[in-house]
Amino acid sequence: MKLFLKLKYVGTDFCGYQVQKDKRTVQGELTRAARELFSYECDVTGCSRTDSGVHANTFCVTVAKKGENDIITDIDVIKIPRAMSAHLPDDISVFEASLVDSDFHPRYDVKYKEYVYRIYNGNVRDPFEMNRSLYLPQTLSEDAIARMKEAAGHFVGQHDFSAFMAQGSQVESTVRNVVYADVAREGDIITFKVSADGFLYNMVRIMVGTLISVGLGKIQPSDIPEIILSGNRERAGMTAAAHGLYLNKVIY
Amino acid sequence: MKLFLKLKYVGTDFCGYQVQKDKRTVQGELTRAARELFSYECDVTGCSRTDSGVHANTFCVTVAKKGENDIITDIDVIKIPRAMSAHLPDDISVFEASLVDSDFHPRYDVKYKEYVYRIYNGNVRDPFEMNRSLYLPQTLSEDAIARMKEAAGHFVGQHDFSAFMAQGSQVESTVRNVVYADVAREGDIITFKVSADGFLYNMVRIMVGTLISVGLGKIQPSDIPEIILSGNRERAGMTAAAHGLYLNKVIY
Repeated sequence: MKLFLKLKYVGTDFCGYQVQKDKRTVQGELTRAARELFSYECDVTGCSRTDSGVHANTFCVTVAKKGENDIITDIDVIKIPRAMSAHLPDDISVFEASLVDSDFHPRYDVKYKEYVYRIYNGNVRDPFEMNRSLYLPQTLSEDAIARMKEAAGHFVGQHDFSAFMAQGSQVESTVRNVVYADVAREGDIITFKVSADGFLYNMVRIMVGTLISVGLGKIQPSDIPEIILSGNRERAGMTAAAHGLYLNKVIY
Repeated sequence: MKLFLKLKYVGTDFCGYQVQKDKRTVQGELTRAARELFSYECDVTGCSRTDSGVHANTFCVTVAKKGENDIITDIDVIKIPRAMSAHLPDDISVFEASLVDSDFHPRYDVKYKEYVYRIYNGNVRDPFEMNRSLYLPQTLSEDAIARMKEAAGHFVGQHDFSAFMAQGSQVESTVRNVVYADVAREGDIITFKVSADGFLYNMVRIMVGTLISVGLGKIQPSDIPEIILSGNRERAGMTAAAHGLYLNKVIY
């Protein structure tokens, strides 16, 4: 049995999830914390590679003894979240733990992932939203939000999302199945929520950049199907900043 | 006329409000921003001196030309919040501006101030609450919250709050009039809200430390009147951490 953990982190001070030499990463911190807790070297495998600055409300990993597919410990699994969190810095915590089969893979076994993107649209910056949302100074009307909602609806379904992928990315297939995509406003916060069986590199951030262009009237909602069909990155909007993006749910 | 500003700031990276040599302070940043915006030296006067790490949802200042009691500018007052915010770092913003009489004083003219203290009481730390609330790992029951509410009620009224003042503080009178004091729970967040005509040094944080002792059953709600009467700092609870405290409202 491997250990399966659900965690949260504030992405601001991490160079993304994946271990890189001499960089502070989420995987690096988890690997160190697991070694301290279990007193042996561990392999930590994540559900995704989030970029620098991207946050996680839910991120999943498995932990096993290094080079093996099992975890050996006397610690009661119910006590793992607090025990593991005690070895982690303030910007990461483990909030759920369970045991899973040794052949479970936290990345390959994902059915759907849900991302949330937060835009702050108040009249002036809110310091408490610093690094937690994108600040959009142009006030969007209810009509603009309705157009963004309509545009988001066009993302739903199985499409080739080449136009919504960072240029130069290498990937076997650019077809993804978007289960839902919606825009909502609550006070000064505009939220884009999207779920799919997988995401291309920067896909959510390019979708958000495109939706902002729709909100600002530069792109019409009815243009979206054609932009998707074009497969042309230059037809879509800009790549919205990393710090508004949250991995929100992972469904196996 | 002086300029009157309402601002917000995240206290984490400031050495409090008041200017100190070679330290990053809110007043320091505001003084620099005002000089940049108006192109002359300004006096910035605050409503209060918040400590290092303490936040403000609302903090009030006046701005006038240095050594004078007036501001001279062509900038429309409605444009000041954005214009001033553009000269401020991401952890401060100005959200309201107006003109006030030259004899108005942002500290001496305060009628009431309201503070909020946030306690995070989830099963594990929440990284998104890092530096924004006090983490209390012992789960408080509904009964514990009810006792804290009852205890808070005893703070209301005009009392000598010597027992709730940091030892060694110098002050003319230790009598303050608390208008309301209440504890509420919403999900994993416990909030203490208190309004008074003035606060002694560390008064809210000592109140919170005492309320936590009440929640944990170490002090009974009915002990509070006697603790107040004793005037003895050692009878009250510990001083709760600065990073859970927010100056929330300022009433003139």
